Amino acid sequence: MRTFVLETGFGLDNLVLRERETPMPGPGQVLLEMRTASLNYRDLVVVAGGHGRAVRPPLVPLSDGVGIVVETGPGVRDLAVGDRVAPAFYQHWQGGAPPDDLEAGRLGGPLDGVLASHCVFPESGLVRVAEGLSNAEAATLPCAGVTAWSALSEPWPLRPGESVLIQGTGGVALMALALARRAGARTIVTTSSPIKAARLAGLGADLVIDRNATPDWARAVREATGGRGCERVLELGGAATLNESVKAVRTGGTILLIGNVTGSMAELFLPLVLTRRITLHSVSCGSRQAFQALMDALAAGGIRPVVDRVFPFEEAHEAFRTLEKGEHFGNICLSLSQDPSR
Amino acid sequence: MRTFVLETGFGLDNLVLRERETPMPGPGQVLLEMRTASLNYRDLVVVAGGHGRAVRPPLVPLSDGVGIVVETGPGVRDLAVGDRVAPAFYQHWQGGAPPDDLEAGRLGGPLDGVLASHCVFPESGLVRVAEGLSNAEAATLPCAGVTAWSALSEPWPLRPGESVLIQGTGGVALMALALARRAGARTIVTTSSPIKAARLAGLGADLVIDRNATPDWARAVREATGGRGCERVLELGGAATLNESVKAVRTGGTILLIGNVTGSMAELFLPLVLTRRITLHSVSCGSRQAFQALMDALAAGGIRPVVDRVFPFEEAHEAFRTLEKGEHFGNICLSLSQDPSR
Amino acid sequence: MRTFVLETGFGLDNLVLRERETPMPGPGQVLLEMRTASLNYRDLVVVAGGHGRAVRPPLVPLSDGVGIVVETGPGVRDLAVGDRVAPAFYQHWQGGAPPDDLEAGRLGGPLDGVLASHCVFPESGLVRVAEGLSNAEAATLPCAGVTAWSALSEPWPLRPGESVLIQGTGGVALMALALARRAGARTIVTTSSPIKAARLAGLGADLVIDRNATPDWARAVREATGGRGCERVLELGGAATLNESVKAVRTGGTILLIGNVTGSMAELFLPLVLTRRITLHSVSCGSRQAFQALMDALAAGGIRPVVDRVFPFEEAHEAFRTLEKGEHFGNICLSLSQDPSR
Amino acid sequence: MRTFVLETGFGLDNLVLRERETPMPGPGQVLLEMRTASLNYRDLVVVAGGHGRAVRPPLVPLSDGVGIVVETGPGVRDLAVGDRVAPAFYQHWQGGAPPDDLEAGRLGGPLDGVLASHCVFPESGLVRVAEGLSNAEAATLPCAGVTAWSALSEPWPLRPGESVLIQGTGGVALMALALARRAGARTIVTTSSPIKAARLAGLGADLVIDRNATPDWARAVREATGGRGCERVLELGGAATLNESVKAVRTGGTILLIGNVTGSMAELFLPLVLTRRITLHSVSCGSRQAFQALMDALAAGGIRPVVDRVFPFEEAHEAFRTLEKGEHFGNICLSLSQDPSR
Repeated sequence: MRTFVLETGFGLDNLVLRERETPMPGPGQVLLEMRTASLNYRDLVVVAGGHGRAVRPPLVPLSDGVGIVVETGPGVRDLAVGDRVAPAFYQHWQGGAPPDDLEAGRLGGPLDGVLASHCVFPESGLVRVAEGLSNAEAATLPCAGVTAWSALSEPWPLRPGESVLIQGTGGVALMALALARRAGARTIVTTSSPIKAARLAGLGADLVIDRNATPDWARAVREATGGRGCERVLELGGAATLNESVKAVRTGGTILLIGNVTGSMAELFLPLVLTRRITLHSVSCGSRQAFQALMDALAAGGIRPVVDRVFPFEEAHEAFRTLEKGEHFGNICLSLSQDPSR
Repeated sequence: MRTFVLETGFGLDNLVLRERETPMPGPGQVLLEMRTASLNYRDLVVVAGGHGRAVRPPLVPLSDGVGIVVETGPGVRDLAVGDRVAPAFYQHWQGGAPPDDLEAGRLGGPLDGVLASHCVFPESGLVRVAEGLSNAEAATLPCAGVTAWSALSEPWPLRPGESVLIQGTGGVALMALALARRAGARTIVTTSSPIKAARLAGLGADLVIDRNATPDWARAVREATGGRGCERVLELGGAATLNESVKAVRTGGTILLIGNVTGSMAELFLPLVLTRRITLHSVSCGSRQAFQALMDALAAGGIRPVVDRVFPFEEAHEAFRTLEKGEHFGNICLSLSQDPSR
Repeated sequence: MRTFVLETGFGLDNLVLRERETPMPGPGQVLLEMRTASLNYRDLVVVAGGHGRAVRPPLVPLSDGVGIVVETGPGVRDLAVGDRVAPAFYQHWQGGAPPDDLEAGRLGGPLDGVLASHCVFPESGLVRVAEGLSNAEAATLPCAGVTAWSALSEPWPLRPGESVLIQGTGGVALMALALARRAGARTIVTTSSPIKAARLAGLGADLVIDRNATPDWARAVREATGGRGCERVLELGGAATLNESVKAVRTGGTILLIGNVTGSMAELFLPLVLTRRITLHSVSCGSRQAFQALMDALAAGGIRPVVDRVFPFEEAHEAFRTLEKGEHFGNICLSLSQDPSR
Repeated sequence: MRTFVLETGFGLDNLVLRERETPMPGPGQVLLEMRTASLNYRDLVVVAGGHGRAVRPPLVPLSDGVGIVVETGPGVRDLAVGDRVAPAFYQHWQGGAPPDDLEAGRLGGPLDGVLASHCVFPESGLVRVAEGLSNAEAATLPCAGVTAWSALSEPWPLRPGESVLIQGTGGVALMALALARRAGARTIVTTSSPIKAARLAGLGADLVIDRNATPDWARAVREATGGRGCERVLELGGAATLNESVKAVRTGGTILLIGNVTGSMAELFLPLVLTRRITLHSVSCGSRQAFQALMDALAAGGIRPVVDRVFPFEEAHEAFRTLEKGEHFGNICLSLSQDPSR
């Protein structure tokens, strides 16, 4: 098998291609021949060495991918050779409350990820992929897709007729846009690019706000919602956007804390948070049950993850660099197969 | 003002047309010039005298209607002359847990209903009607529409990708079908008529089951859901259908108890209910907040209540008789206006 | 190892003592030297052959027990030799929504239970026992204790100040009484025996109703709650008590369906259920997370399961017969150890 | 009637005593002869003019009080002369989701408060006081008590066995301590005074941490909870304590944002919030239904609000100054009656 691995240190320079012996599936495990992976902003942080002490080389990066079962270990009950599956981001969180050691079970750091031609996973950490999805589309689901799903399901589900504000045009944002529309919500998306604004409108966003033209976009959100503000804000920006999100949300509304692209130490103006009885709920991905629920929702058709581009396996470094530039629209993917037609 | 009233007893024969002095709105109240009413199965029971001791003549029947504010009492804050509004079914349930005396606040018995040219309501018991809806469409919402909404929101909201079984083609059933589709659910509807089956398919039902052709329809539901059963069953039938609903629902799933058209004393087979960890939750309409949430969802467009027919005011008796026959598809309405063009 | 097993058929006569080879723990598994088991009404049904086609001989009965880890298989992470643990009733339900094949993972049928000197379990199916509990007390928790916990936590948790009605004096009922008191609820318990009534009062029940003296106990419950009825009813009886429970519950209240001792086919009077917006929610035990939460609550002290009597291992048949008589107060237990002092 | 009023401006110097004509109760309203009021930190901010533009002189301050019905207006249904009642903090929030204009309905600014010998309230804005409570104890409930209740009930209720961290010794903190103990939680309280620490231990706190001696108290909390952290943190401090609270909370845990005594602009370290899937939920008081639920819980007995001191009516200024010093333990109250024995 072939795999990219951060062998001796962090940084793209240390991400090297290696030949390894293909592993054997143990009891309850299956061997996957991988097809496609998808990159998340988190993977950039991991490769840069910014993800904390628990994530250390040697490490195979990337959490999101899809593969085909090619061998099953003893005691495997539900999966068979030929099944197309995707691993859950948290390998040990089945459902309900998150386990105390939540961080210990993440793919792509501290656990080895999917940037390899073959991987072994326990059956209990996999979800069967719905038929209508391409490999690249399915590869975007484990972290980016489930995060979007959780952001619309937690701490209480979206209701039809609610207004949802979504920041940006990354994989989580676009999946959330599709899911929120599907659930009957009114969607408002902020972006910093007129070209992306046009594409967002094409994807059915009810209102697109150019953050550059309207830096105080909370005011525009309130105007567009009869002065009340949004029921739900998907806060993907972080430090630079949080207080504008607080201004944009309705009394009793919810801000989903998802990303911190613009900075880690956010200032939070408490009086407005208190008076409006706002809830700030952080979602980083979700349980395997959440992943299964997302897959059930996609099985019904009508929603397709947005894939910006699929790089060939050999161009993994280029895929990371493209993600870093931030000019993508949707998910950046990577073929893990030697046969690029699959 | 003109009003129909059950003056001295129950039964359609005792439902008589009367001229009355138009009432004046008191503090916090508004006077409505009524436009349209909608009939529910419950109204048949009330007129027949079958709704229990608290509901007594003299009584103006019908809970569901829409009107225009023509006069405001002192202290009215949010409504103005010209506003189009609909009264909430429970006049005294604003939101949260239902009050202990829930039954005491129902329109159309024990409180006087909307079968009149003019009505007075407290501002706190009204909801503003969304613009895109016709008077007849809006008239279907207070009881039938809100019941459908509650059945998809309680005790926990529907999630996209879930399978929902809906029984029949009355006003609640068709509104639930539209709302469930809008929320991204897979919809299965049972009916006893091939003609209605065709219309249901036209409304987008994913699967329509003819109860006559398939009396053990739970089996068909399980087959159509990969053997798992539905996440949610809207039990509109009552005694004759409840145990089939139990068979049709998924482990951990929910049956919404809504109607008892086919009988009041239902047999419930406990072992299946216990082993599958089923929840049976009864919804009769909902709070004013639920009504407002439904209206917000409809304001976004794309959903229109199905109106079977609008009878003129003078033909109120005929409207009740038509409802009783049970051949309608959607809501049977009644114009309350002397000018039938409004 | 020694084990009782339903070897060739159902019935106590077929429950025979056998010597077997002590099993070895596989990957992720541990071997337990068992200490004590506890009997539930369900175990009577299983032994009698009344639990459905999936539960078949040969079978080791009993789901509830406690043991000491004496050997760990490869890859065991959290448990060590000497740890005192109890297996979860549903071995494959970690948390969140119940799996579709919920019934397949139950101990004591269809899976082999704990009526043996030694058992092997996967680490993921065990919960560490809190220090202050005796072996017999801890043995009552996996099914009876968790059922009581679920009945006070689902579908929404009990609130301090609520009134809770509990039926009877079995293990579930007494554990629910202790937990409900601990959670600040007002407790009402029904019983058919004056002697048990006195013991219930001694356990702190706020009101005890003698079902024989007061067959229409719902009236007594409403009187004791200012006419409103209880927020929560733990329905342990089944067919013979359900409609009285419906009368005893408050508008918007909840009936927890738990047992069907008095019959499987219950009649349910729908109009009252509908008008009062009642929820009927069935709880049969709960997930491993629920078990852990119960254990956390007991670790704080102040609550002890009520153990009626502990039979020696050899008297297993007598333990079953004593349970069948129904004169116990709390849980009937069985020592699994050859050294009765442990 | 006598009343204190901020007549021409903010500041204690502008809080003057005035004789006014006793108002008449209108339709649905009652007249109260007030007994006792309780002061909250918010009242200090209001009097100081720091509560935003909507709160303006002339204004009668104080939200929390208790009085006796001495006259009922037309249409009053549930209350009678002689009933002892307390007004809800939000006069227009019955239950469910908070209204958009939540801030507009607050007593003690912008609405006139209870610092008067007589007050008129709509019946719908009052809750009957439980018998066992003194006037001063009951006076602490509308804002401080309900806030404590909400902080243990929202966004999901406390479960027995959970660990709850509470900051300080004000009225909200001590009421939360009593309610959390009653609900079966493990309680940890931080304080800055050894004397208060001793009193907290006397009130049953499981662990008291001296913030001065242990400035990094989150570490102490984690040690005391087996490394896991608390399920729930009541964040009463604000800017100076928020990040320590984030460190003290368990994976998947909840921080209740309640106060901002130590500053309004808080820094929030996002990576920890995201990785641990923390929820931050703000509670400022609650609905009238929440107030009623709290009263039901207190009616069961066993919990008494902690009253630091009751000042006579004439010493209102002194009561405010004492609150400002921050040396109190529990609630500072004020008699509103001319007869101090009542």
